[in-house]
Amino acid sequence: MARTKAEIITIGDEILYGQIVDTNSQWMSQELDKVGIKTVRKTTISDERTDILGAFKEAESRADIILITGGLGPTNDDLTKPCLAEYFDSKIALDNEALAEVTEFFKSKGLELSDINRQQAFLPECCVRVPNKIGTAPGMWVERNGKVFVSMPGVPHEMKMMMEEVVIPKLQDIFNTEVIFHKLIKTVGIGESWLSEEIKVWEDNLPEHIRLAYLPSLGQVKLRLTAVGDDLDQLKADVEEQIAILKTYAGKYIYGYDRDQMETAVGDLLKKSGKTIALAESCTGGYVTHLITSVSGSSKYFQGSIVPYHNDFKINVLKVDEKAILGHGAVSEPTIIEMANNVRKLFNADIGIATSGIAGPTGGTPEKPVGTIWIAYADGNETVTKKLQLWKDRTLNIKATAVALLNLVRISLSKTIEIKD
Amino acid sequence: MARTKAEIITIGDEILYGQIVDTNSQWMSQELDKVGIKTVRKTTISDERTDILGAFKEAESRADIILITGGLGPTNDDLTKPCLAEYFDSKIALDNEALAEVTEFFKSKGLELSDINRQQAFLPECCVRVPNKIGTAPGMWVERNGKVFVSMPGVPHEMKMMMEEVVIPKLQDIFNTEVIFHKLIKTVGIGESWLSEEIKVWEDNLPEHIRLAYLPSLGQVKLRLTAVGDDLDQLKADVEEQIAILKTYAGKYIYGYDRDQMETAVGDLLKKSGKTIALAESCTGGYVTHLITSVSGSSKYFQGSIVPYHNDFKINVLKVDEKAILGHGAVSEPTIIEMANNVRKLFNADIGIATSGIAGPTGGTPEKPVGTIWIAYADGNETVTKKLQLWKDRTLNIKATAVALLNLVRISLSKTIEIKD
Repeated sequence: MARTKAEIITIGDEILYGQIVDTNSQWMSQELDKVGIKTVRKTTISDERTDILGAFKEAESRADIILITGGLGPTNDDLTKPCLAEYFDSKIALDNEALAEVTEFFKSKGLELSDINRQQAFLPECCVRVPNKIGTAPGMWVERNGKVFVSMPGVPHEMKMMMEEVVIPKLQDIFNTEVIFHKLIKTVGIGESWLSEEIKVWEDNLPEHIRLAYLPSLGQVKLRLTAVGDDLDQLKADVEEQIAILKTYAGKYIYGYDRDQMETAVGDLLKKSGKTIALAESCTGGYVTHLITSVSGSSKYFQGSIVPYHNDFKINVLKVDEKAILGHGAVSEPTIIEMANNVRKLFNADIGIATSGIAGPTGGTPEKPVGTIWIAYADGNETVTKKLQLWKDRTLNIKATAVALLNLVRISLSKTIEIKD
Repeated sequence: MARTKAEIITIGDEILYGQIVDTNSQWMSQELDKVGIKTVRKTTISDERTDILGAFKEAESRADIILITGGLGPTNDDLTKPCLAEYFDSKIALDNEALAEVTEFFKSKGLELSDINRQQAFLPECCVRVPNKIGTAPGMWVERNGKVFVSMPGVPHEMKMMMEEVVIPKLQDIFNTEVIFHKLIKTVGIGESWLSEEIKVWEDNLPEHIRLAYLPSLGQVKLRLTAVGDDLDQLKADVEEQIAILKTYAGKYIYGYDRDQMETAVGDLLKKSGKTIALAESCTGGYVTHLITSVSGSSKYFQGSIVPYHNDFKINVLKVDEKAILGHGAVSEPTIIEMANNVRKLFNADIGIATSGIAGPTGGTPEKPVGTIWIAYADGNETVTKKLQLWKDRTLNIKATAVALLNLVRISLSKTIEIKD
């Protein structure tokens, strides 16, 4: 069976001139791949009529599906809409549903619809409107001679919502796609090369229709299994069978699958255990709290957090023993133990976790160079501490510390839940 | 003068299928732009002979310069080299300098040259070799009928070294390039369409050699000015002159330029004013603290932060008046005023800022639907509050609230600094 082919056209000078990185087309081709549609070309062009019309024509000659992002703003430099009308020999007219949508959008913000935004409700008559729930520019869907054109805004979250809710399901309906099943297995606490050694036997014995890829990121390694065949249920079962075997080699490093994140995995463990958590963050400056509270429903287990950046507040607000800080410094095991235990009490939580270190790029000493970071977990029964020796980069240090700290919680909670089970 | 045009062709399935983000082409178009070469198209294709040859032909018909990355590995699935030979009707032969280079490369690592890597020294006879000091695949340069093709490895640091040391200088020699100057002006607190109305007179009167583009993102709009001419210093002066006029229309919305971010702009204002800040975050769950502390040197002005997720801690730790919470709710003006003022005192800071709201996606009521968020600024002299009515999406609400809150600080600090000046 020939695979359905898609091309992605990105319109916008800011990507062409390199002012922003195009992450949209990466995400789009991944989503297409998941439903068996092969991206055969990605093209980026400027907001110029002849370039846009030329790109439409070339793409139509090669692909079944042409996905277009960008060039949909209300200002004069945005040309996607008039070009679509011209290409499909169609008039631009007021779409009443689009008008109701954009009026409602402004009303929900307590605003009147301005003339310039009213323009957003005018669409080429050849197009079916793709609703935009979180922005002002609707998407446009056109079919001709078995080929599909879809135009979407370049704003990533608007494009993603349209793709997930409308475009991908509709494309799956229209095109009879080959079945591909991907599964991401997410590991933490082991590097790529060590992991590959631990799971070598499993990897070497994977069946032919299942491929493995390693996708490493900061402190984590994702394993992607890709199964290709005719029957989705069979593929899913085959993959699950392989994951069951994988667990016997590397189960303790696996924290989740697919869209799971460390913070959702830890959130699930907290919910399962019925325990609550509080944080004292120094060098991570609120980032771990942000991760935990970014999960919907986290108010069930997250009690509170404090970022006492200076020693005064560690002593006065968090009640860290002055002797620990003055004797050993803020970046030390005695201080981090106090921080984790005291924040539990301050916010009346079952578990307290803490970070203290030198995130950088400045502030290091010969004994405690930039990247020296202490983390701790305390639950009243046990206190676990860990010293990290990371890099010179502030952003990387903050992110890697967050992963390591969440992993401490994951390991401790997994043990207690296993014992209970 | 017509601008020299370049097209960038990226060859490789891993970018096409979305397994990695293409950052090469962004960097390349930035470098080309700096020397006045305009990127008119970026194309990503797979390692397939017909796709590669077709892309060469199309690009040659449009552009003066065709830069190609990827598909240069020693394995059979890499086809750029044979395709170049075929396209230019040329034979592949051993290049002795390339052989010496790749042999030396392996020797420097204490390795023998393998047969497969010896293949790297075979090049199409039509090509001039571009040396690769840090990898095994040389680049290739071909000229025909005034057009230049350059093939480089897809490995970012190898490509960058070739571009910087050989390709860009050679292109500048050959093409008599124009000078281009870009400047980003970053605004906050006004939507794209309203901003375009406020600055219409200025926009309509921009000189011909300066173009304007609107780049909106969550709560912010970037304006990009692009000036084209012969003399860089003159262009910079022309752009500065236009920015001075722009400020008379929209100065109060401008928080920075080019790489400035809201958190760095606010950090600069705090440093300039000599004031310190503390945060009480409820619905933003540590995100604003994370932004502020992500700036290197923020410990000079950031005192501390607290995320009291439940009413108990707002009352017991932050000492919010029980009557405010019980009478009006946690998401209310009386409570947010207490939060901002009390967190100032808790962390002994000049300024206290606070957020409280329903980030969603659940937890709303008819009077306070999801997306109802209060923010406040307090500095002992004045307390400023604002009610936001945002969306159903938790992540967007958190990010948009952060922008709005940092903007409150920016507006208040700008006033006090102006008065002092």
